[in-house]
Amino acid sequence: MDKRLEQSLLYDFYGELLTARQKEIYEQFIQEDLSLSEIALGAGISRQGVHDLIRRCDHTLREYEEKLHLVERFVSIREKVCRIDASIDQYQKDQKEQRIHEIKRIADEILEEL
Amino acid sequence: MDKRLEQSLLYDFYGELLTARQKEIYEQFIQEDLSLSEIALGAGISRQGVHDLIRRCDHTLREYEEKLHLVERFVSIREKVCRIDASIDQYQKDQKEQRIHEIKRIADEILEEL
Repeated sequence: MDKRLEQSLLYDFYGELLTARQKEIYEQFIQEDLSLSEIALGAGISRQGVHDLIRRCDHTLREYEEKLHLVERFVSIREKVCRIDASIDQYQKDQKEQRIHEIKRIADEILEEL
Repeated sequence: MDKRLEQSLLYDFYGELLTARQKEIYEQFIQEDLSLSEIALGAGISRQGVHDLIRRCDHTLREYEEKLHLVERFVSIREKVCRIDASIDQYQKDQKEQRIHEIKRIADEILEEL
């Protein structure tokens, strides 16, 4: 997975567990895509200070994921629901009965994971 | 939702964020369904001590859910995948085209939530 996408997903899941200050800085980095220098200027700290804060946030968010694996679970479910969706799109074109069994199989796989 | 089921779900999602000692006691309560007195005897602390520890765990786990809402998201997704499953079961019996649109609609709803 692309690093920026991974950071964004981790923040989406566990961001609320960061401090208000960490969230403020990390959001500018992840969601507003500002550079370290731009964030430093706005926050009144050094570029190195922003860099260190973001690294600490990355580390904290990854620690939550290592313990809880919730991003991993969601990504896996999303991938399967996309396959359900694609199967339904194909359904009207070809081999309807086979498609519906495929959809059923994927739905059951998701239920087992939940 | 039934309280015990809620505790069990919260523990399933956030249990790894409790301390080793908290996990040890809470698991006996939730998963092995031991009484407070039985747990107290095994752990070498008072019944009141077990009671307090479990209340603290409940509180900690609920705080994580209030911040992250991940149990809520999962319960909602599971409910929808169950509906997909039920729709597919009905599919072979009646109004096939209508059923397949229903399945598609639910899958799209889930994707929007993910």
